[in-house]
Amino acid sequence: MDNLDLAIRKNRTTNATITLSHAGLPVTDQEILVQQKNHKFLFGSNWGESTLALANGELSGKAKEQAELRSERFVQLFNQATLSFYWARFEPRRGEPQTERIRNVARWYAAHGCLLKGHPLCWHTLTADWLLEMSNQEILSAQLARIERDVADFAGLVDQWDVVNEAVIMPIFDRYDNGITRLCKEMGRIELIRAMFDTTRAVNPQATLLLNDFDVSPAYDILIEGCLAAGIHIDVIGIQTHMHQGYWGVERTQSVLERFERFNLPIHFTENTILSGKLMPPEIVDLNDYQVSEWPSTPDGEQRQAQEVVLHYKTLLAHPSVQAITWWDLSDGGWLNAPAGLLHKDHSPKPAYDELLKLVKGEWWLSPTKITTDAQGQFTFNGFLGDYEIFIDTRKIPFSLNEKGTASLSIEL
Amino acid sequence: MDNLDLAIRKNRTTNATITLSHAGLPVTDQEILVQQKNHKFLFGSNWGESTLALANGELSGKAKEQAELRSERFVQLFNQATLSFYWARFEPRRGEPQTERIRNVARWYAAHGCLLKGHPLCWHTLTADWLLEMSNQEILSAQLARIERDVADFAGLVDQWDVVNEAVIMPIFDRYDNGITRLCKEMGRIELIRAMFDTTRAVNPQATLLLNDFDVSPAYDILIEGCLAAGIHIDVIGIQTHMHQGYWGVERTQSVLERFERFNLPIHFTENTILSGKLMPPEIVDLNDYQVSEWPSTPDGEQRQAQEVVLHYKTLLAHPSVQAITWWDLSDGGWLNAPAGLLHKDHSPKPAYDELLKLVKGEWWLSPTKITTDAQGQFTFNGFLGDYEIFIDTRKIPFSLNEKGTASLSIEL
Repeated sequence: MDNLDLAIRKNRTTNATITLSHAGLPVTDQEILVQQKNHKFLFGSNWGESTLALANGELSGKAKEQAELRSERFVQLFNQATLSFYWARFEPRRGEPQTERIRNVARWYAAHGCLLKGHPLCWHTLTADWLLEMSNQEILSAQLARIERDVADFAGLVDQWDVVNEAVIMPIFDRYDNGITRLCKEMGRIELIRAMFDTTRAVNPQATLLLNDFDVSPAYDILIEGCLAAGIHIDVIGIQTHMHQGYWGVERTQSVLERFERFNLPIHFTENTILSGKLMPPEIVDLNDYQVSEWPSTPDGEQRQAQEVVLHYKTLLAHPSVQAITWWDLSDGGWLNAPAGLLHKDHSPKPAYDELLKLVKGEWWLSPTKITTDAQGQFTFNGFLGDYEIFIDTRKIPFSLNEKGTASLSIEL
Repeated sequence: MDNLDLAIRKNRTTNATITLSHAGLPVTDQEILVQQKNHKFLFGSNWGESTLALANGELSGKAKEQAELRSERFVQLFNQATLSFYWARFEPRRGEPQTERIRNVARWYAAHGCLLKGHPLCWHTLTADWLLEMSNQEILSAQLARIERDVADFAGLVDQWDVVNEAVIMPIFDRYDNGITRLCKEMGRIELIRAMFDTTRAVNPQATLLLNDFDVSPAYDILIEGCLAAGIHIDVIGIQTHMHQGYWGVERTQSVLERFERFNLPIHFTENTILSGKLMPPEIVDLNDYQVSEWPSTPDGEQRQAQEVVLHYKTLLAHPSVQAITWWDLSDGGWLNAPAGLLHKDHSPKPAYDELLKLVKGEWWLSPTKITTDAQGQFTFNGFLGDYEIFIDTRKIPFSLNEKGTASLSIEL
């Protein structure tokens, strides 16, 4: 077991001692079955257009079968789903939000045990075109009203939000005019972030609120420091890692973690991409500039991807600050048409999917295990933090392991 | 006259109407002499080791003559001097600061009409080695005590300070261990800046306090925003421009100005370098990595330097936010042994010096000019903001032009 595996055991598991009693007496020498039901760690991916269509009853025949396959593989591996709230798509015409359509897919994922996150509430890309007609004051009002409406509409269902996306580049983004860049130029990054976070939190005080960025330079580090020094309450630091130009490797990933761990905030790796085909050339600065009609997944690329995915997930799980990893595009054919999926376009698994599943539901997972309690009515096991069940005869008793290290639980039958 | 020249006239000059009166009556048809004595704009350079030695009576013979030549050319062109307070040199042994030696050169420059700035109070490079023995709490105490002592010792003589230098890189600087990087890692950039600024201002409330950096990326922009949002009072944004790898050009300079003008704070270009020889290769990241034994100034390089210096100064004077430009190393043989001087090693002028002098004391300057007052006792002229004198017969009357646009002054003789 190498250093990463040891760190994962140290930071993600607990030595659990469970004591069973009945009418105040230990239940000794009792055979039980214990099994894990869920991870505390969030293993996620983004919505998927086909699952969105499926959950809204828009598919039939082969398309429906295909979507069902994708959705089945999603919930087999993942316990978290990021949902699309891009303003341009969510409300293409002012006053006509796609609330019901997104709510249907949110309910589908929730029913399949996934925690949900909305992405994003404020971003200069894919923002509403109709902001361009407005003054900055009107843009601000519309943006805050959008947050108030959508966060309220989804409260209890979606309680995690990427509140502001890519603020580092937001006021200097110059690819095209848009309302949010205009607003950020006037307000500054920090006051814009303050307005968005304060509004979101006021509507849903229970929600977990993220600042999210692809920039991992000192600029993002300093922006977070500035927000915190200005009294803005950020729950989680979101870091994108679209590695279309090559996997970062362990060392770079750890140096990024070292940069952001000092805030003592949880870190979510919100958008992870590792390709199973040709890499994007290094000279491309804005990934969106790389547009190709065909970008195949290759056998060699799939082997490489599988190794890199395993190393990436292990590196992140080994670090105690990381609480979530979200894969970006479960199946090929998503953003940039890149071979970025863990599944092929037909949703058949690539090696990376199989290897990740072996970890998440294998090496890092307690399958149904028979144990017999001792003379004190106790049994012990080392398990990953998460939700568990004990079966005793026909009874099923749930419990959770929430703290790493050691845990003692007493269960009265 | 091109756009830069027009903008310079607009932002740096005033149409002055001066009314002379005596015993309440206009002094009409009176011939006077008016001349400029100083610029409001700060044209500066750094101390120069030879002037430091000269002011301390450490030189004789040829070395003294050479230092006098350098010093003469300094005050012919400049009205601002940046003085060296590098902690490693200022206090190489704890408790033995070089206060008197720096005070002597400060007095020399002040006596020759130069406004003074101390550089820097807190920096990870050239900081005191003896901090390495200390805990972070002790380093902080020593750093604040150093500020309290030196700012008090020089108050009234040095009332401008580069308080914190290069904070963007400060906590991630990894070339060698040093006390200030350790401290900044623990405090964070913003709280370190707050401590240094608050302490400096408490000791000398009249002082002008700068944050200074070579980083002109969004990281510095965001750091300033963070400091201001956290309630830190910064008087001036300092921007270094060591252009050893080539002159930025007008467009890049203007885009940097556009990035920093939004804070509505004065901007000082604190450390300007344009070479008159071979450029440093573009692949060098830390300029200090380029160490050469010979780095000659060339005739072609001097022509290029002269053109670029003129364009650089014009670009900066054309922008209303800029209040100071400090040339780094008046004579060749300074930092990195680069051909960065406006003077050669023997202090003979390069074309850049001559061209700059033609602007600062020529095109942007009112030489002694005879004027006759009109029937209202008035005379008018367009002049650069700064200090002036009128001579009437044997009398000398000083006045200042402080506001661009138009100015009306009444002088009672």
